[in-house]
Amino acid sequence: MFLRNCWYVGALDHELLDGKLLSRRLLGEHVLLYRGESGQVIALNDRCPHRGALLSHGRLEGDAVRCMYHGIKYDSLGKCVQIPGQDMIPPKLRVRTYPVVERGPFVWVWMGEPTKADPAVLVDLPYLLDPAWKGLPAYLHYAANYLLIVDNLSDFAHLAFVHTRTLGGSEEYAYVSKPTTIERLERGFRVERWHLNSEPPPFHKKVIRDKHVKVDRRNIATMLIPGIFTMETLFAPAGQGAREGNLAGARQYRNCQFMTPETERTTHFFWSYLNDFEGADTTISRSLLGSLIEGFMEDKAIIERQQQTLEEDPGFEMLAILADAPLAHFRRVLGKLIEAEQAGTPSQASAGQLVSGQSGAPRSVTTAGH
Amino acid sequence: MFLRNCWYVGALDHELLDGKLLSRRLLGEHVLLYRGESGQVIALNDRCPHRGALLSHGRLEGDAVRCMYHGIKYDSLGKCVQIPGQDMIPPKLRVRTYPVVERGPFVWVWMGEPTKADPAVLVDLPYLLDPAWKGLPAYLHYAANYLLIVDNLSDFAHLAFVHTRTLGGSEEYAYVSKPTTIERLERGFRVERWHLNSEPPPFHKKVIRDKHVKVDRRNIATMLIPGIFTMETLFAPAGQGAREGNLAGARQYRNCQFMTPETERTTHFFWSYLNDFEGADTTISRSLLGSLIEGFMEDKAIIERQQQTLEEDPGFEMLAILADAPLAHFRRVLGKLIEAEQAGTPSQASAGQLVSGQSGAPRSVTTAGH
Amino acid sequence: MFLRNCWYVGALDHELLDGKLLSRRLLGEHVLLYRGESGQVIALNDRCPHRGALLSHGRLEGDAVRCMYHGIKYDSLGKCVQIPGQDMIPPKLRVRTYPVVERGPFVWVWMGEPTKADPAVLVDLPYLLDPAWKGLPAYLHYAANYLLIVDNLSDFAHLAFVHTRTLGGSEEYAYVSKPTTIERLERGFRVERWHLNSEPPPFHKKVIRDKHVKVDRRNIATMLIPGIFTMETLFAPAGQGAREGNLAGARQYRNCQFMTPETERTTHFFWSYLNDFEGADTTISRSLLGSLIEGFMEDKAIIERQQQTLEEDPGFEMLAILADAPLAHFRRVLGKLIEAEQAGTPSQASAGQLVSGQSGAPRSVTTAGH
Repeated sequence: MFLRNCWYVGALDHELLDGKLLSRRLLGEHVLLYRGESGQVIALNDRCPHRGALLSHGRLEGDAVRCMYHGIKYDSLGKCVQIPGQDMIPPKLRVRTYPVVERGPFVWVWMGEPTKADPAVLVDLPYLLDPAWKGLPAYLHYAANYLLIVDNLSDFAHLAFVHTRTLGGSEEYAYVSKPTTIERLERGFRVERWHLNSEPPPFHKKVIRDKHVKVDRRNIATMLIPGIFTMETLFAPAGQGAREGNLAGARQYRNCQFMTPETERTTHFFWSYLNDFEGADTTISRSLLGSLIEGFMEDKAIIERQQQTLEEDPGFEMLAILADAPLAHFRRVLGKLIEAEQAGTPSQASAGQLVSGQSGAPRSVTTAGH
Repeated sequence: MFLRNCWYVGALDHELLDGKLLSRRLLGEHVLLYRGESGQVIALNDRCPHRGALLSHGRLEGDAVRCMYHGIKYDSLGKCVQIPGQDMIPPKLRVRTYPVVERGPFVWVWMGEPTKADPAVLVDLPYLLDPAWKGLPAYLHYAANYLLIVDNLSDFAHLAFVHTRTLGGSEEYAYVSKPTTIERLERGFRVERWHLNSEPPPFHKKVIRDKHVKVDRRNIATMLIPGIFTMETLFAPAGQGAREGNLAGARQYRNCQFMTPETERTTHFFWSYLNDFEGADTTISRSLLGSLIEGFMEDKAIIERQQQTLEEDPGFEMLAILADAPLAHFRRVLGKLIEAEQAGTPSQASAGQLVSGQSGAPRSVTTAGH
Repeated sequence: MFLRNCWYVGALDHELLDGKLLSRRLLGEHVLLYRGESGQVIALNDRCPHRGALLSHGRLEGDAVRCMYHGIKYDSLGKCVQIPGQDMIPPKLRVRTYPVVERGPFVWVWMGEPTKADPAVLVDLPYLLDPAWKGLPAYLHYAANYLLIVDNLSDFAHLAFVHTRTLGGSEEYAYVSKPTTIERLERGFRVERWHLNSEPPPFHKKVIRDKHVKVDRRNIATMLIPGIFTMETLFAPAGQGAREGNLAGARQYRNCQFMTPETERTTHFFWSYLNDFEGADTTISRSLLGSLIEGFMEDKAIIERQQQTLEEDPGFEMLAILADAPLAHFRRVLGKLIEAEQAGTPSQASAGQLVSGQSGAPRSVTTAGH
């Protein structure tokens, strides 16, 4: 059971180069994504309504696509426009379409009621369009339900134990630092955490010169419905008062991660990790990409094993600790939205993905680091 | 749910060479096929009734087979004839047998009520026994329900799009030619289609000298219950009036394909593609065998993906176009026969596989090309 | 459905060397087995009750283990003793523990109600602790329900057909020899079988000098709940009256095999095959280990195929022959014990694994060969 009336990342722009007919399962449905010759990105159900053959195995013709089983052709609105050997086209022979919005390198797809699709409710991530921020957007596949990834990202303590030698830096992070702020948002949560006077973590050490200068580290994370995670990371020289506003010599990162359900048990995971101190080449971005993949692989092993555990024993009930308050809130909010959507009575919260942002929090978070 | 009271191809003769105990699943049942020392082909349920071990892992002894778990021996009628260490043989210790008929290179098995098995109702394909027709019978496995293969063979338009560069020749075939005749048969259908003044398709070009002489191409296909497809193909020099009967210089093929369900989701696919202009060696047959496999692989990719689509979404309903009339008829007839068989009231149609043939059509089709 | 209130072999001692956190599924449950720094073997449910991560992917700390997802630590009693970043520890945050007994190279685990665990009811196999008997304990995994392995071991006739060229020696074994005694025990059965004046079987020939001297061969096998098989094997020079007590020049083996359900469809198979004539090195033990593995592979192919057959057709009912009397008795006894355990009214028989031994049989069997 997924929330359908919202935007999900369906692809990265470079996946649609050169007329590629990309077949990707989103929320259990097979979707064909392609950039038509007009330049427009089009999303159709990837199933010829005639005999169920994959349109992604078909042929791009302008903005239209032809099924290469019996040659039936559909335009970008999903309308059948040709049946070889037959003149009359039955109006029922239509392919379902999905609204699409491109924003930076990400292609967003609306999986619910098309008439409700509103680009204005898309999460606003200005650094994705700002040339001062550099990064290399990327993709990973998880054999796990997307909410297990949401959970993972909801408690920073795992940085200390899972990512000690990659993204975390030391187990101390879990013992010494605590969230300074946890905010419940209408469509998610926001957590801020400072770790003062600490060793820079390995991924950061790799891209800076003064590897042994201690840092004051701040992470501000937000998680929004349906599975949109952003994190602003700041490393300032320790002791100069970064927490009080002195950001001289600070290094900053902007991280956005998008979890899109493929099925109930698998997930598409898109992300970009950006920095504001890249030179003219892409060496820093590439180093960060490598570090992030290294770290995600550590998560992936745990999360995919959790999925197996839950499948084997659906009766297993997790026991919450205090640090689980944000994820518990997230699941509660999501559950209510799905329930309302199923009942056909969209709550006010589901009207827009940024309702909570409009109440101040996530949007202000997004810019808090500037 | 399968129609059981009919003949299915279970094996090719060369598969039973040299005492081979061939284990093959037919209609969901594990069947052991072997040629006993008497020369007779025998089909037994491939499961020792004692502990369920495979008899195909046992040992051939004359026309009998011994289970090599505890040494119990069964004769060609399935009767237990020896239990090592035990004198009295319980009469219940029997293996189920299946009636078998050999016809040319094909071994046919009756999967229903043994007393109803009648070799006389076997489809009559004289070219299989006629030395003037040469071919190399072969086998492929499909991870798809057999009816999806029946469907595939029911609409020639797919030749144009799936097999453009192998069996089809051009997309024109779908636009220009149309079935001249579609006959509904009591146990299937018959379709005739002419494509005049066309390029010879690639598989034919490979085995003829004058590759650029245009041809008048005629296909006559029949599909019979439970999944017996035959096609007579004729290529005559274009414009000489082949359609009116002038077959001078024509090249002919006889094609028979047999779909036998392995399970609800997998199929054994046997075929032979014969020609009447082979020289003393087998070069033409081998070229045709290669071309056919190339073409079937194109079908297989589509059909197996259809199977996946249907398994993932059992609610998916295909939408028929005009060209689907024959397959719709076939499924209707088959459905009724299965229903009658399940209800225990065999309709007249199920009395013989050739009832429809006796009413004239398929038999006349089979010989129409001579 | 398994009998839970009894001891099962969970591991071999060498599997727990050097702080290994061994994850093994027993009776469907994921169990973590490890030797703590105190030397004690500990068995915990292998699932952190917080988010379900595997404790076996965690870190050994003394006798305790730390989950390396969020750093939560549990002691050897399953009690949570640390949550990084949280002072109060909720008492519900506990891991289930399993009683453990070590006996020779085998680690036994009690999978039922911990308070009922009694080391005194463990099967008594003195040769496992007697330095005069040498062997190399080993492990195999079976993709089959453990009772199919019990069945296999219950009828020696399979030696003749499955193991002709390895453990059996000739098909004659099935025709000529018969069980001399079959005893029904309260928790299993005991079978004795003599095969007089026979060729030594291949596995034995490999480790003796006079390979062509005929032997009188005696096997005494017992099978006990839940899946404990022992066999005493004796080869004496033929004709000297071994059956009447003259064991001069005899060679003896002690064999114990333990079937522990992993799941309903898979089994852990532990064994040791011991001899009393080994020299100072391990050549004889290693030869026997090789022979046994060779033989078990022959069984495994059959048994795993049986499992598939039963999964495909749960309606298949095996038909018993006379030789199946012991296994039928075993399944009946086991069925009653499981039923009583499920109903919460443990029968007397379930009070101890050696109740039947106490009535004389299995214990006297165990020593009968001395």
